Amino acid sequence: MKPRKIEGRLVLEFPSEDVAKVVYQAVLYEHLTVPYRRSEIEFRLDGRRIVIELRADDSSALRGTLNSYLRWIKVAIDAVEI
Amino acid sequence: MKPRKIEGRLVLEFPSEDVAKVVYQAVLYEHLTVPYRRSEIEFRLDGRRIVIELRADDSSALRGTLNSYLRWIKVAIDAVEI
Repeated sequence: MKPRKIEGRLVLEFPSEDVAKVVYQAVLYEHLTVPYRRSEIEFRLDGRRIVIELRADDSSALRGTLNSYLRWIKVAIDAVEI
Repeated sequence: MKPRKIEGRLVLEFPSEDVAKVVYQAVLYEHLTVPYRRSEIEFRLDGRRIVIELRADDSSALRGTLNSYLRWIKVAIDAVEI
């Protein structure tokens, strides 16, 4: 009775393209080096927006993936603010 | 340098409308009784899909909200499976 599929999309809009780019690049490093992933994920920059699109077949996998990305984004935002 | 806004949408597609409805109703109870919320959230049933739309201005708030909903959904799915 699990969901057949779970799809998600998150869009983070930043005050400027520069800020979005710095945050994006910091998280991109994590995105590219994660060795193993339980969800399909597309992570891209679109002007001053960071867009995350996900697909998973398990709500726990999705939750884990979202937590990782949102945590990396938070760390990157905090670093930009220093 | 925080994001100006964060918007998200999650869609969970279930094998049948009945299952989607049972899970939805279980989580709806939580949705309606949460006393305080740091993100705007719309939670609805659309046939055999559960749709969550969110808006937050802080990635931690969004993460907290998503965690709650995905956890409630998982609990409801597990209950349906018993």
